[in-house]
Amino acid sequence: MPEPGTTLDPAIAARLKRTPDGLVAAVVQEAGTGDVLMLGWMDDEALRRTLSTGRATYWSRSRQEYWVKGETSGHHQHVTSVALDCDGDALLVTVVQTGAACHNGTHTCFTDELPVEAK
Amino acid sequence: MPEPGTTLDPAIAARLKRTPDGLVAAVVQEAGTGDVLMLGWMDDEALRRTLSTGRATYWSRSRQEYWVKGETSGHHQHVTSVALDCDGDALLVTVVQTGAACHNGTHTCFTDELPVEAK
Repeated sequence: MPEPGTTLDPAIAARLKRTPDGLVAAVVQEAGTGDVLMLGWMDDEALRRTLSTGRATYWSRSRQEYWVKGETSGHHQHVTSVALDCDGDALLVTVVQTGAACHNGTHTCFTDELPVEAK
Repeated sequence: MPEPGTTLDPAIAARLKRTPDGLVAAVVQEAGTGDVLMLGWMDDEALRRTLSTGRATYWSRSRQEYWVKGETSGHHQHVTSVALDCDGDALLVTVVQTGAACHNGTHTCFTDELPVEAK
C-alpha cells in the first residue's frame, strides 16, 4: 500500500480518461475575470500535487518533467477550485494568477486568432 | 495539390502540436458569460470544418468519428472566434451555445468538484 497522500486518491484516478501518454487536459481559468489563461497537462501525480498543495502543477510534454507554475517566473497560480468533466478527460482549474499566465508575457496564451470563414 | 478548402490551411497545420493520436484540445467558452462549457478534441479536419462552417465540430475519441455539436441533440454551438495558444496544442473556441452544452443536460461539463486540500 502506498502511504497516505503519496498517490492520487484511487477514486479520482479511476474517473480519469487519459491521452495515450497518460495525461488529462487542464483548462486554467482566472477567478474573477473568467478569462481562460492557458491549457496545461496533468498526469495523476501532477493532479495529486495540485490538489494537495493548492499550487498549479503540470506535466511538461516538451521537457518531460513536472513543473510548478511560477517556479522560475514567479508567476504562480493559487488554485481556488478544480472540477473534473463528465467524461474524465479534462479538468477546469480556477486560479488566482500572479503576473502573466503566458511565458511570452501576455495575460493569456490564446493570442493567435484564426479566421472563422462563416459566422 | 488538394483543392482549396478541402484541407486545413497548411500555415495553420504547421503550428499545431498534436497528441500522439493527432489531436489538439479545444476549450469551449461561452460568449457573454465566459463560462467554460466543455473540452472537445479536434484533428486537422475537425478544425478545418469548424473554421469553414462556423459550427463547432470535434473528433470523438470514444466513437472515433467526427461530430458536429448539436447534430443529434439540437444543442448547437455557433462559433464566434477561435484562437490558438502559444505552443499550438490548444484552441480556445468561443461559442453561442444553444441549450445545454453537456450531454448530461447540465450547462457545463465541469460539474464534478475535486477537493483542494490546501488553499
